[in-house]
Amino acid sequence: MTDKTLTSSGFYVSQEKSLQPANKVPTPQTPPPDILRCAYMELIVTDMAASRQFYVDILNLQVTEETENVLYLRSLEEFTHHNLVLRKGDTPAVAAFAWRVRSPEDVDRAEAYYKELGCRVERRADGFVKGIGDAVRVEDPLGFPVEYFHDVEHVERLTWRYDLYTAGTVLRLDHFNQVTPDVSRATRYQQDLGFKVTEDIQDDEGTVYAAWVRRKSTVHDTAMTGGDGPRMHHIAFAAAERGNILSLCDTLGALRMSDQIERGPGRHGVSNAFYLYLRDPDGHRVEIYTQDYYTGDPDNPMITWDVHDNQRRDWWGNPVVPSWYTDASWVLDLSGNVQPVVERTDSSEMQVTVGADGFSYTRKDDQDDMPDWKKGEYKMGHQL
Amino acid sequence: MTDKTLTSSGFYVSQEKSLQPANKVPTPQTPPPDILRCAYMELIVTDMAASRQFYVDILNLQVTEETENVLYLRSLEEFTHHNLVLRKGDTPAVAAFAWRVRSPEDVDRAEAYYKELGCRVERRADGFVKGIGDAVRVEDPLGFPVEYFHDVEHVERLTWRYDLYTAGTVLRLDHFNQVTPDVSRATRYQQDLGFKVTEDIQDDEGTVYAAWVRRKSTVHDTAMTGGDGPRMHHIAFAAAERGNILSLCDTLGALRMSDQIERGPGRHGVSNAFYLYLRDPDGHRVEIYTQDYYTGDPDNPMITWDVHDNQRRDWWGNPVVPSWYTDASWVLDLSGNVQPVVERTDSSEMQVTVGADGFSYTRKDDQDDMPDWKKGEYKMGHQL
Amino acid sequence: MTDKTLTSSGFYVSQEKSLQPANKVPTPQTPPPDILRCAYMELIVTDMAASRQFYVDILNLQVTEETENVLYLRSLEEFTHHNLVLRKGDTPAVAAFAWRVRSPEDVDRAEAYYKELGCRVERRADGFVKGIGDAVRVEDPLGFPVEYFHDVEHVERLTWRYDLYTAGTVLRLDHFNQVTPDVSRATRYQQDLGFKVTEDIQDDEGTVYAAWVRRKSTVHDTAMTGGDGPRMHHIAFAAAERGNILSLCDTLGALRMSDQIERGPGRHGVSNAFYLYLRDPDGHRVEIYTQDYYTGDPDNPMITWDVHDNQRRDWWGNPVVPSWYTDASWVLDLSGNVQPVVERTDSSEMQVTVGADGFSYTRKDDQDDMPDWKKGEYKMGHQL
Amino acid sequence: MTDKTLTSSGFYVSQEKSLQPANKVPTPQTPPPDILRCAYMELIVTDMAASRQFYVDILNLQVTEETENVLYLRSLEEFTHHNLVLRKGDTPAVAAFAWRVRSPEDVDRAEAYYKELGCRVERRADGFVKGIGDAVRVEDPLGFPVEYFHDVEHVERLTWRYDLYTAGTVLRLDHFNQVTPDVSRATRYQQDLGFKVTEDIQDDEGTVYAAWVRRKSTVHDTAMTGGDGPRMHHIAFAAAERGNILSLCDTLGALRMSDQIERGPGRHGVSNAFYLYLRDPDGHRVEIYTQDYYTGDPDNPMITWDVHDNQRRDWWGNPVVPSWYTDASWVLDLSGNVQPVVERTDSSEMQVTVGADGFSYTRKDDQDDMPDWKKGEYKMGHQL
Repeated sequence: MTDKTLTSSGFYVSQEKSLQPANKVPTPQTPPPDILRCAYMELIVTDMAASRQFYVDILNLQVTEETENVLYLRSLEEFTHHNLVLRKGDTPAVAAFAWRVRSPEDVDRAEAYYKELGCRVERRADGFVKGIGDAVRVEDPLGFPVEYFHDVEHVERLTWRYDLYTAGTVLRLDHFNQVTPDVSRATRYQQDLGFKVTEDIQDDEGTVYAAWVRRKSTVHDTAMTGGDGPRMHHIAFAAAERGNILSLCDTLGALRMSDQIERGPGRHGVSNAFYLYLRDPDGHRVEIYTQDYYTGDPDNPMITWDVHDNQRRDWWGNPVVPSWYTDASWVLDLSGNVQPVVERTDSSEMQVTVGADGFSYTRKDDQDDMPDWKKGEYKMGHQL
Repeated sequence: MTDKTLTSSGFYVSQEKSLQPANKVPTPQTPPPDILRCAYMELIVTDMAASRQFYVDILNLQVTEETENVLYLRSLEEFTHHNLVLRKGDTPAVAAFAWRVRSPEDVDRAEAYYKELGCRVERRADGFVKGIGDAVRVEDPLGFPVEYFHDVEHVERLTWRYDLYTAGTVLRLDHFNQVTPDVSRATRYQQDLGFKVTEDIQDDEGTVYAAWVRRKSTVHDTAMTGGDGPRMHHIAFAAAERGNILSLCDTLGALRMSDQIERGPGRHGVSNAFYLYLRDPDGHRVEIYTQDYYTGDPDNPMITWDVHDNQRRDWWGNPVVPSWYTDASWVLDLSGNVQPVVERTDSSEMQVTVGADGFSYTRKDDQDDMPDWKKGEYKMGHQL
Repeated sequence: MTDKTLTSSGFYVSQEKSLQPANKVPTPQTPPPDILRCAYMELIVTDMAASRQFYVDILNLQVTEETENVLYLRSLEEFTHHNLVLRKGDTPAVAAFAWRVRSPEDVDRAEAYYKELGCRVERRADGFVKGIGDAVRVEDPLGFPVEYFHDVEHVERLTWRYDLYTAGTVLRLDHFNQVTPDVSRATRYQQDLGFKVTEDIQDDEGTVYAAWVRRKSTVHDTAMTGGDGPRMHHIAFAAAERGNILSLCDTLGALRMSDQIERGPGRHGVSNAFYLYLRDPDGHRVEIYTQDYYTGDPDNPMITWDVHDNQRRDWWGNPVVPSWYTDASWVLDLSGNVQPVVERTDSSEMQVTVGADGFSYTRKDDQDDMPDWKKGEYKMGHQL
Repeated sequence: MTDKTLTSSGFYVSQEKSLQPANKVPTPQTPPPDILRCAYMELIVTDMAASRQFYVDILNLQVTEETENVLYLRSLEEFTHHNLVLRKGDTPAVAAFAWRVRSPEDVDRAEAYYKELGCRVERRADGFVKGIGDAVRVEDPLGFPVEYFHDVEHVERLTWRYDLYTAGTVLRLDHFNQVTPDVSRATRYQQDLGFKVTEDIQDDEGTVYAAWVRRKSTVHDTAMTGGDGPRMHHIAFAAAERGNILSLCDTLGALRMSDQIERGPGRHGVSNAFYLYLRDPDGHRVEIYTQDYYTGDPDNPMITWDVHDNQRRDWWGNPVVPSWYTDASWVLDLSGNVQPVVERTDSSEMQVTVGADGFSYTRKDDQDDMPDWKKGEYKMGHQL
């Protein structure tokens, strides 16, 4: 990390550069679409009633529209038709990661861009789902089903409707998180699309374990997380304050649904956000997220975390639950079939953070053992 | 639990009764002292500079007085001389659990009470530590060093001095927690002293794993936790809000002291309090605690949690770190020697909460397996 | 204030003494009942549907029982039948301030105590309202309708039922506040009943403008506020955190019911609590209150605020709304007639806090002018 | 408001249009600079020690650099050299509103743009203050001193340095607010510069009382507030949560500096943000602000509030302090002289919100009377 500056907080900063991975996805001649932000995800769920309880009754997403097999949901602050489409199906999976672009012409640009890349591309003037107009869906070079659209039905933004709030309400769609085997390759592909890298996790050999990329002025609109992919790691909604996230946990406890809590709450090192990871009734992972920072300047310092910094994933040093590394949702191709998964061949973040004592915890300078009281957390009960 | 009523929250309520353990500590004829509240702890620490950073710089306890080897600390809201005495020594341990009694005569009553019990008793008209007047110290029947006093030097209560607050400040001493092998025997002894039981954890055979007892109108002034004892499990300070506890974690992260965080933050089932467990530089456990409930009515419903309710210790279902069960601080006798520890022979809460899969997680009705994503948390890294 | 110690926060502390007012209510020979805490208020309301929306839908009080003309409500944490009884009637008023006593015998003591005082006393073995057993109601020497009871129906404490919480939920009944012309006389009467004074507001001549008295270990169970009385100033419910109070304001805004907000939110000087004053549909004042301090020690320092300290009522220096001084609810005698009101002859707090410039703002040492930007707040619009 | 849609929250939404004021500032042929965000303000203060206490000790701005007469301050999250420059002088005033532009070439564009407008323009390759490189300062058509720059010294972003946080810390510069006589003219000038209008306040005749305009994706980077101008209404820093703002008030109380609190805390209608207005030692107004909403989509709905909606300025219906309307800071020309002020001739928001009863409170549909208890707030003390 010779070109990076160590900060007083223990991570490094530098100016973002275009990555140069060995097996780069070709950079098209066609200009990329001007992407505004992550806009919605289309999820396949197997039990609509259970999903409705989770997303509507508990997370307080608002129902914009509902048909027999599809539920269109939006967060309280959203003024477009939806941030989440739940479609009933047999296999839990992601049908689309949808991005809003600046103008109708940017849908044309997206179509041309992916055609030049040789990807499968499908365009529908009247949209793939309700509320959305002209849109293009592609199977991107990483294997993800991605939609670009501009035209969208406006609905009422409910920010001021505090009578509709719950103690644990979410307000905004914040980001996606995608699992992909080769993070450098994936990140450069996102850079070509116009994304800026805000943070990443590396080791001394330069292996990239994960990278966060943004279009809007937050830490990310999506992240490339190293692992067998293409898979969907999580979808994240933003809450107003830390207290909302704690109240959501309390409610899950009261409903005796605490099994839905996978990891957290805690403070991330990466992004600085306060977080909670839930699993929906199909196991899709949902993050509740608040309080990252402004990234909108072109020279915003890129942060690099050492994979052996045990505060990178949780600023309080709480170890990452292994399922958080291993589990993720399938994604579908444009025909609705599950995309086959390619194994990651680079080092696994979970593996490299296993210390000499066999526990998944890490720190720099070979002091890789957890303190005794944290180590205990990872012992099996019958060994104690 | 035939005489208990199941609530809609999953625990049981009943009216407190005097426990009748087989090996009861005799109930003295002498009336017990009228105890007001837990007042202070005297702790032996080995590195005064490190302890000072932890308790003064980080927890924001205020220094009332300081000598070469002793630091007298109080929380911001306290109007008596101190809530914590740190004394430099070679072996980390507790020298005294000190209780404030209602009147000077209650010190006489305490002396007579323990003399009738045949305990070692020492009285000093000018106190054992600065700021305290007439006091008696005893080795109680459970082996703990306990002090009773009434006279105390008043100092300024700093509640309104918000210029002295930090984001993660603590305000009050809330309770002690003591480890003892036979919880029923210990609890009955506390009942004889005038304590009321507010909550406990039991199994279907009536084994008591822990009990919470109070004098002031909160959930507890101390708790009897089952384990090898006498040992000190933790001392707890109250903060104003959940956010203060989160900010304290953030600060520990910034200081790269996240190893000090042992368990939490989280919401307790028992007591309903929001909690965090820290370990001080000597390994003494400190809880930061907020928002339990009023218990001052004589018929306050006593709550019994099933030891197989996986939300009893953490309402969000996060498993308990084994070190939290196994580690505790030594206590001293009145000569300053470490008290020998008696093994618990009743079932261990940690052991009975180990499921068929070997993981320390439990729930009622034989559904003892953690969900897959929680189970993972307890696998060793190299097994994944 | 010669016997008082000035603190670094600008108020004074001293040890409580029995007040010796000129026209003292006689101290009975009979011992007073052992009062636990303020327990419930019976309020006459004129529009049950409007009151139900206010107390149930907005404040989230839980309905324990309901008849055609009476609504029995409790806060989420309460385990007794109710904290508030709303009875439909023609004139908004208070029918009873009800106190819970330690034992059934304390009801006998209360009866004897008030008979010795020559007050009108009525006892009903089966209670005056549902859920309450043997009780006595009196017209006390200050003219207030007061009930004492011990027997009460237990209901489920809903503290853990976070699924029932709203963002602005209240949890506990905290205190009453009573308007009475002669605060010293009223306070001594409360001292005789076993109350301890925790704080008061005085001027240099020793005029007492208000006093806070407690049985439970908080700053107060009721307060004596100087003014034309007997009238009821407010009833206060406690919330968990400051954020709950802010969310309640947001909800009132969303419902376009912001007119219900009379004063606040703010931080009190007296009591240190974070507060909000609402007016219910009949104009009864309700405070939402959180985070005062522990007062349970017998030598708890009594605080005296100078009436010319402009931070005594609001720590942030925001002036008190005049209606807060002038408006209060009628109270009924035991026959259900409105009690006539006696004028205060001592100085009025509102009057003495009017500065040379005619504005209701005050500070010590003759610096009685508000800063220019605060002064403006009190100018009439057409004068600007 | 015929082209506007009434929402369920009581305000109107429409798509932004270019305003067409009678006395429009000419739209240059030259393209405007690509402005990123409001970046810093240069303030003249008369007492550096007092200002330092206010901005550094209380608001917790960090000192990047200091010379005898100049203090360079940044908020914890900032990575550029400063957000605030305090320069010692005789007359409190604003020397510059500084905007960061996307590229060095945008400084050229700014220079050309204002030259075409015929404004006084000054360019310095090495900047007007420390930490800033090539910059241009102009006297804009509204009379404000405005700087555009791109080159800036990077410093460490301290977001993760929680050990430096206070309970009431601010994190980011959020926006400026400028007073100008003709809001429509000023807003169209800002639109020509590339700003988007997010909200405004109008009456039925179309008079615009204030308008909020943005470059970054928040509600505003600056606002045009109707009044005698050019003057500076306030500079706003963002905090993380509502609780930080409350803690800041508590601290000011503890320091006996509550006079510094001018208005709030409260929730805005416009912007939905939680707010507090302070006055610095020279009377410069500083807002602490948190939790507005994302506005980055090109078709973000513009909100119009009726000037007679009494929740527009405070969602809780608390009336605006008149000084908030009348007071503002002088601005300097490029020679350092105070700019003369032009009177507003359009209706004054303060005047039109005075009801039939003479009090400054307003609501739609001729229901212009405050409720009795709010009305009281505006009576002079000696009239009560």
